[in-house]
Amino acid sequence: MTDHPSRTLAAFAATLEFGAIPAPVVERAVNLYVDWLGSALGGSGARPVETIARFARAARGAQSPQDACDVVIDRSRSTPYFAAMTNAAASHYVEQDDVHNGSVFHPATVVFPVTLALAQALGASGREFIAASVAGYEVGIRVGEFMGRSHYKVFHTTGTVGAIAAAAAAGRLLKLTPGQMLDAFGSAGTQASGLWEFLRDAADSKQLHTAMAAANGLMAAQLAADGFRGAQRILEGAQGMAAGMSSDADPAKLVDRLGERWATVETSFKYHAACRHTHPAADALLAAMAGHRLAPDDIAAVTAHVHQGAIDVLGSVTVPSTVHQAKFNMGTVLGLCAYRGYAGVNEFEHGYREAEIAAFRERVTMALDDEVDRAYPARWIGKVSVTTRDGRTLHARVDEPKGDPGNTLSREELTTKFVRLAAFSQAASEAEARALLDDAWRIVDAERVGALFEASAVANAGA
Amino acid sequence: MTDHPSRTLAAFAATLEFGAIPAPVVERAVNLYVDWLGSALGGSGARPVETIARFARAARGAQSPQDACDVVIDRSRSTPYFAAMTNAAASHYVEQDDVHNGSVFHPATVVFPVTLALAQALGASGREFIAASVAGYEVGIRVGEFMGRSHYKVFHTTGTVGAIAAAAAAGRLLKLTPGQMLDAFGSAGTQASGLWEFLRDAADSKQLHTAMAAANGLMAAQLAADGFRGAQRILEGAQGMAAGMSSDADPAKLVDRLGERWATVETSFKYHAACRHTHPAADALLAAMAGHRLAPDDIAAVTAHVHQGAIDVLGSVTVPSTVHQAKFNMGTVLGLCAYRGYAGVNEFEHGYREAEIAAFRERVTMALDDEVDRAYPARWIGKVSVTTRDGRTLHARVDEPKGDPGNTLSREELTTKFVRLAAFSQAASEAEARALLDDAWRIVDAERVGALFEASAVANAGA
Repeated sequence: MTDHPSRTLAAFAATLEFGAIPAPVVERAVNLYVDWLGSALGGSGARPVETIARFARAARGAQSPQDACDVVIDRSRSTPYFAAMTNAAASHYVEQDDVHNGSVFHPATVVFPVTLALAQALGASGREFIAASVAGYEVGIRVGEFMGRSHYKVFHTTGTVGAIAAAAAAGRLLKLTPGQMLDAFGSAGTQASGLWEFLRDAADSKQLHTAMAAANGLMAAQLAADGFRGAQRILEGAQGMAAGMSSDADPAKLVDRLGERWATVETSFKYHAACRHTHPAADALLAAMAGHRLAPDDIAAVTAHVHQGAIDVLGSVTVPSTVHQAKFNMGTVLGLCAYRGYAGVNEFEHGYREAEIAAFRERVTMALDDEVDRAYPARWIGKVSVTTRDGRTLHARVDEPKGDPGNTLSREELTTKFVRLAAFSQAASEAEARALLDDAWRIVDAERVGALFEASAVANAGA
Repeated sequence: MTDHPSRTLAAFAATLEFGAIPAPVVERAVNLYVDWLGSALGGSGARPVETIARFARAARGAQSPQDACDVVIDRSRSTPYFAAMTNAAASHYVEQDDVHNGSVFHPATVVFPVTLALAQALGASGREFIAASVAGYEVGIRVGEFMGRSHYKVFHTTGTVGAIAAAAAAGRLLKLTPGQMLDAFGSAGTQASGLWEFLRDAADSKQLHTAMAAANGLMAAQLAADGFRGAQRILEGAQGMAAGMSSDADPAKLVDRLGERWATVETSFKYHAACRHTHPAADALLAAMAGHRLAPDDIAAVTAHVHQGAIDVLGSVTVPSTVHQAKFNMGTVLGLCAYRGYAGVNEFEHGYREAEIAAFRERVTMALDDEVDRAYPARWIGKVSVTTRDGRTLHARVDEPKGDPGNTLSREELTTKFVRLAAFSQAASEAEARALLDDAWRIVDAERVGALFEASAVANAGA
């Protein structure tokens, strides 16, 4: 059997050992896990998330005392398949989960639902959990880069590529051989799906995409462990993912410095609770206002200088009719930053319809910027031009939006974000959130990844 | 709200009444159901099918006394989701399920698993079951035609479009409003997936495609019934299915003569147990041999004059290493026809590796034929040129391969096929098969679609 990119990548995922992962990568992976768990809690109570949770319960039809996998939003238990499905739906909802710039892919929301559920079901160690999660990140990010910008114009990469990332993560925990891992990639890739069309209708598909990417990837790995065979070149083959859904795929990206370059640490945390395409301009506007001591009412107009991808994703919404659409509306995000200093979950919930935000929104336009577009997706540069009411035109830029690897969030900032998300959705009290955090920061030391709530909330309830 | 093709098609599916379906269409739908049930029985025991069945049982984690839905291959019961998933995996395995020529779409294997499971769960009548099934056929066929030939070059239409067909069928049984049906289309279409890449490796993805098209379509309809919103133009929108996966989509085909043209009756039964792309040439070879009284050993070479789609799908296999690959190998199919007079499940199982078949296979080539290619996919013309050992070159053609609407199978032929498939897989004895058939022919009269095996096999066992 000759080597080819899909096979090389599958072998890497199947054989990645915890000991081969540098300590800073492990530490960042733990931070990413904590950040993910906060996002999953934050999705509790959201209508689309709860609808998927109800579907999952009905599709099962019965509970079992053997159920080992936490459903984060309601502390019920389920099988790996349905726990992964529901937690993945939950963790993308508040638009606070992580993102990898170069691949425009959100790894956490499709990787951790699978590794948490499967580690709980298998009684795997914290080290195995982290190794599998890193395998998912490294694979998913490279596949996202491989699929290219043309893919992202129509497809939600986190849905499509997410299935492969989930399969890699699940396959690693299931100890698949390299050959089985390749089968898992085949079964995951042939299920790759997720279209952006829902954005213009404020439909609920984003939660469905992450739910099913996680569930399908897990299914693919479980099938492979049981001998189910998949295409050997699902990524680069003549009738594979790139052939069907990309016009600029580059197979070299699939195997880019495997084991040397750790894409996991290139992943950005989200500071604002909005579509990532708004963040560079949001931070640039905040820099302009701070640097020139502008009050929001001083601003007559803002031009956000953006890359084409931002226009593709954000351009379909002009007047948002839901919180979710507001998170994909540049004007609303900049308005919240201008008036509230931050575009977080609470700011969106209460602010997006307010008159001053709506009025500010109308003063914002996006313009394609050549420098920003050329740098994208490797770098997400923020540039704005602000016209003031007294006639000045001011410019500001940020080269690394807050949360990017060079401007990352500290554990203290991640803690604040986590507690805020748990409080926002009422999924956990502050004390419960802090108990969950205590366990989560120490997950590498866990001999077995156990129940989330027994070990933290329940113990805490007795305290 | 303005009308657009997705909305018009969704409204048709949501409002299709049994009474509006002409009697010959109902009769054909019953025949298609019987034919499907035989194919589902035929998949029992097949490794990829049983692997998916094991996955489904594990993902559920527990049985329930409330389970109402038959899993045809082993007579167990499950929820609609997992019964549909498993029966859909089973019914495409032996390559005997129906096909609609113009859309190159296999409706039965994604529609009936959903309508049978859901009708059993809901206690729906036979008339409701048929109306929902016809809704699935009419929708799926039009969406397949809409997606065009470019889609089929890379994507397995039965997987991608199958999710929409399944959603239409499920949505009709769930009595979705037109608006909810459109939501269901959105959620199904954004999950549309299935790549041909697996063919060159003889991988198991085909069963996964049908399993998940049925399951995802059912899920989409159940979510829509619970308020989950989908894209309103998932088919024709700027970031919808056609935008991402077709270059020759024609929206007019989505609404072609709805309620007047019944695409259901255009569906072909499969006579040979092989990829449909081999059937026209197979029947043409049989015609040549009959017309010129040729014995197989008289034949020095055969050229099958085919459409491009046959080359795309069949061209990747030269020497088949499995029964399934043999069904996608023109030379093997023609060899079985030449030596056995028929390429059925038993002929493949025992014959594809035999020396005379392998030698015949090497004497077969495919050539793109302009007339055949222009007629395709509306008509699947069979043309062969046969060179005899005594130096003659003979030509033969068939304009409607056996099983096509103008050359359809009788109820007697369908009965023979059904009993043969049940015996092949040992899923049912001949007496059990005949009892199942008795019920299936009368399904329109059923007040409630009940259990398959209680009503037939069990009653029969007592006789």
